Amino acid sequence: MTADTPTTTLCHHNLEGVVYRDKDLVSELLGDNVDFTRVMSEHILGRDISDIELKVINAALVVLMEHGMTPSAISSRLVYMSAPESLQGAVAAGLLAVGSSFVGTMENCAELLEEIVGCESGAARIEKVQKIVAAHREAGQPLPGFGHHLHKPDDPRAIELLRLADQWGFNGGYVRALRMLGAVVDEQRGKHLTINATGAIAALFGEIGIPVRVMRGFAVISRAAGLVAHVAEEQQAPSGRFIWDLVDRSIPYEGSAGR
Amino acid sequence: MTADTPTTTLCHHNLEGVVYRDKDLVSELLGDNVDFTRVMSEHILGRDISDIELKVINAALVVLMEHGMTPSAISSRLVYMSAPESLQGAVAAGLLAVGSSFVGTMENCAELLEEIVGCESGAARIEKVQKIVAAHREAGQPLPGFGHHLHKPDDPRAIELLRLADQWGFNGGYVRALRMLGAVVDEQRGKHLTINATGAIAALFGEIGIPVRVMRGFAVISRAAGLVAHVAEEQQAPSGRFIWDLVDRSIPYEGSAGR
Amino acid sequence: MTADTPTTTLCHHNLEGVVYRDKDLVSELLGDNVDFTRVMSEHILGRDISDIELKVINAALVVLMEHGMTPSAISSRLVYMSAPESLQGAVAAGLLAVGSSFVGTMENCAELLEEIVGCESGAARIEKVQKIVAAHREAGQPLPGFGHHLHKPDDPRAIELLRLADQWGFNGGYVRALRMLGAVVDEQRGKHLTINATGAIAALFGEIGIPVRVMRGFAVISRAAGLVAHVAEEQQAPSGRFIWDLVDRSIPYEGSAGR
Amino acid sequence: MTADTPTTTLCHHNLEGVVYRDKDLVSELLGDNVDFTRVMSEHILGRDISDIELKVINAALVVLMEHGMTPSAISSRLVYMSAPESLQGAVAAGLLAVGSSFVGTMENCAELLEEIVGCESGAARIEKVQKIVAAHREAGQPLPGFGHHLHKPDDPRAIELLRLADQWGFNGGYVRALRMLGAVVDEQRGKHLTINATGAIAALFGEIGIPVRVMRGFAVISRAAGLVAHVAEEQQAPSGRFIWDLVDRSIPYEGSAGR
Repeated sequence: MTADTPTTTLCHHNLEGVVYRDKDLVSELLGDNVDFTRVMSEHILGRDISDIELKVINAALVVLMEHGMTPSAISSRLVYMSAPESLQGAVAAGLLAVGSSFVGTMENCAELLEEIVGCESGAARIEKVQKIVAAHREAGQPLPGFGHHLHKPDDPRAIELLRLADQWGFNGGYVRALRMLGAVVDEQRGKHLTINATGAIAALFGEIGIPVRVMRGFAVISRAAGLVAHVAEEQQAPSGRFIWDLVDRSIPYEGSAGR
Repeated sequence: MTADTPTTTLCHHNLEGVVYRDKDLVSELLGDNVDFTRVMSEHILGRDISDIELKVINAALVVLMEHGMTPSAISSRLVYMSAPESLQGAVAAGLLAVGSSFVGTMENCAELLEEIVGCESGAARIEKVQKIVAAHREAGQPLPGFGHHLHKPDDPRAIELLRLADQWGFNGGYVRALRMLGAVVDEQRGKHLTINATGAIAALFGEIGIPVRVMRGFAVISRAAGLVAHVAEEQQAPSGRFIWDLVDRSIPYEGSAGR
Repeated sequence: MTADTPTTTLCHHNLEGVVYRDKDLVSELLGDNVDFTRVMSEHILGRDISDIELKVINAALVVLMEHGMTPSAISSRLVYMSAPESLQGAVAAGLLAVGSSFVGTMENCAELLEEIVGCESGAARIEKVQKIVAAHREAGQPLPGFGHHLHKPDDPRAIELLRLADQWGFNGGYVRALRMLGAVVDEQRGKHLTINATGAIAALFGEIGIPVRVMRGFAVISRAAGLVAHVAEEQQAPSGRFIWDLVDRSIPYEGSAGR
Repeated sequence: MTADTPTTTLCHHNLEGVVYRDKDLVSELLGDNVDFTRVMSEHILGRDISDIELKVINAALVVLMEHGMTPSAISSRLVYMSAPESLQGAVAAGLLAVGSSFVGTMENCAELLEEIVGCESGAARIEKVQKIVAAHREAGQPLPGFGHHLHKPDDPRAIELLRLADQWGFNGGYVRALRMLGAVVDEQRGKHLTINATGAIAALFGEIGIPVRVMRGFAVISRAAGLVAHVAEEQQAPSGRFIWDLVDRSIPYEGSAGR
């Protein structure tokens, strides 16, 4: 083993047992009060988490799990119809849609919040918020964490998540930064734009110190659960053939001359 | 909408809210005691689950989450090195390894347990168990749910899971069927072969009524969490380049003449 | 290196060059007449292929490449919309649908053809064909390689592929076995059922000695090309959002009570 | 159908036939001279391609197909071992590694070449090249299309591809721009840095007008073929278990205290 050999702190196994990050799986992690969400969160983050942090993660995972017939869910259902021997393939296909267009806005919002929180004074924060909002408006870019094509005027999930944040007593500045952004957005636009669920989760994840580039990982886990539910429903009440026929006949063929 | 139009019971959304299986997300599923594992399990299974059932699912998810540098984890790490813009792609690549060779044995074991439990009498069950074990021995096939290349003489995870099953008072016949299989295996072979973790989980999942073809879904969710931990470690302490070089130089090229 | 160390015959690289299966990439495979389909086919099969074999592979790849808005194509388009940073993820999602339900029938048909070709006499072949058709009818199973939900009474691709097989002079027995199956199917059913494209390709691939379990690989390569075309079209004329909305509003939510 | 309904120019099918982009599959694309690489290239690009353009695409596909035990190939092999029921899953896992780190440099190089070619005069081009090289040096960023960790001092594939470009008579400016970059790189560094294969392909693809964001698609198709060869070898001479054991024992576990 040279100096360049990487090591892992995640797991060790031998004849007698399995260790997850210094803890013996059988004697320390299983048992009558085993909690998967806590174990996996501590495994990912590499530290113990408090009860309040666990509540945040549970809430975020529940919110990100499901939103009906999304691109993810449709893909999983179609792939499952085509390859029922591979449930994992169906879920993987759906997870590939957990990309920059939707879930990625959570990270982009989180980066803005970090910039704001990192300012040295309240005045600097206000200035930063003004600049961020103005820059996005000028560039014609949507502000990550804001707006929702279905939920108007407000995304009810965001309102509840922020209410819980208050109840749980967070004051790391991320939730406040998000609200500042929201106030300035409304002011500059002259009308209200909702904070959306990914914006609220970005703020909550910021409060509990989840690194920005790990955030999408929680979305992936949560969505995996939602997609398993779609596959399970597909097993009992298949929709794949219907979706295929529907799409095939709804998008007409047009010869090249037509374009 | 014709008679052939499928429906979904999973999710409904409108301007004001989101419903998961008859329950309002904001007012009924979020809140101070939100529990992701319960919500997702009820979402997948389409029914309320008891506290004991939830303990079983938590335990299974924790056990299936991680086993170090597995084919899944190696694939996720290599893909992440190659495409760091797509965390979801790295996790998806690893999940594609949750297939028939390892996790699939859980389903195969569960099917055997269903056959045994479905027998009409104790005598019929004993006969069925004898036949199953003998048939696998004659065909030279491994008995699904038994044996482990790393954990000998016993898989400590299986022992603990079955101890918990006793503590939690299950008597649906699945755990008993697994133990009967184990006793007959040892007797016919003349030496001890461990019940492994997938065998124990198959029995526990049988006890709480998870359909066989949904079982792999829980493994996929759990493993997704483990793979996110591997990607998060890869972000901080990369191993991808090391693995690539190691494998590339350890598998020699041999001209066709050499075969 | 122990006796257990695997070797590879596929590729070797060093400072000066790259070798694909004994051939120097630069001096032997590139050049004015470079042909990708030939190079990749010889790479996969591990042997030189004749000009006629190359024609078969070209024809099969062209036929398998595209069939409009299939589950594969829809999935790739939806994933691309959601994660445009990862073209590879969009194609991978679509490829996951190249499974047992559609393309897998090619392998199942090929196995039947192998059984028939392997018979020792013409009489044994006829008996085998009769048995195969009868067994599928009794079990109510579709005969792999036969029937098509869109192309009736005949799949024009199959007719052309078999015409080409005649033109190219194959007489290994696979094409004949497929036609025998077709004649007996029609006779036993009392009406005509088309040989489909996957059936014809199974026969042609049998004629040129492609191993059954490698066949799906050619379908995957071909379909990858088709999916790249769908992604390229999606870049210019996006359909993802339309598909999402269409499916979401066409599959109604139904509370659990409704089932 | 509203004004917003997307259309497709790719494929149309009905009872009698299948059309790929205005051409009848059976009567116009199949036949004695069928060429998959031509058909798929025209399908992706939406236009006829010349014989010289076809040579370029063939050469690029052959070069991108294979490079031994890469992250892609290792992932495909490990996933195939774990889920042999799903060849498509193994290939998909490997394709997910066709991301920004390696193949993505092709697109980044192509963008630089487009900037250079787009300059209005020779003097402007020279100035642009000087600026690009200097900017990358100052930022400490590798120049996309240059350097290779294995092939030194020169990537022999790049030399051959550029020689072919000369032979085929391209003068659209992309190959010349790449060579200008190379000359300035060597001058500014005071020593030689190789143009690599992805750089050369970026230039050749530029010459034949392949849009930058479609380029990765050709890499995906080519690599799919290479990965099928790895899976086919894995079927005959498995390496998956060896790789797993090798990696597992070569990356030591270290308790958290060790970091």
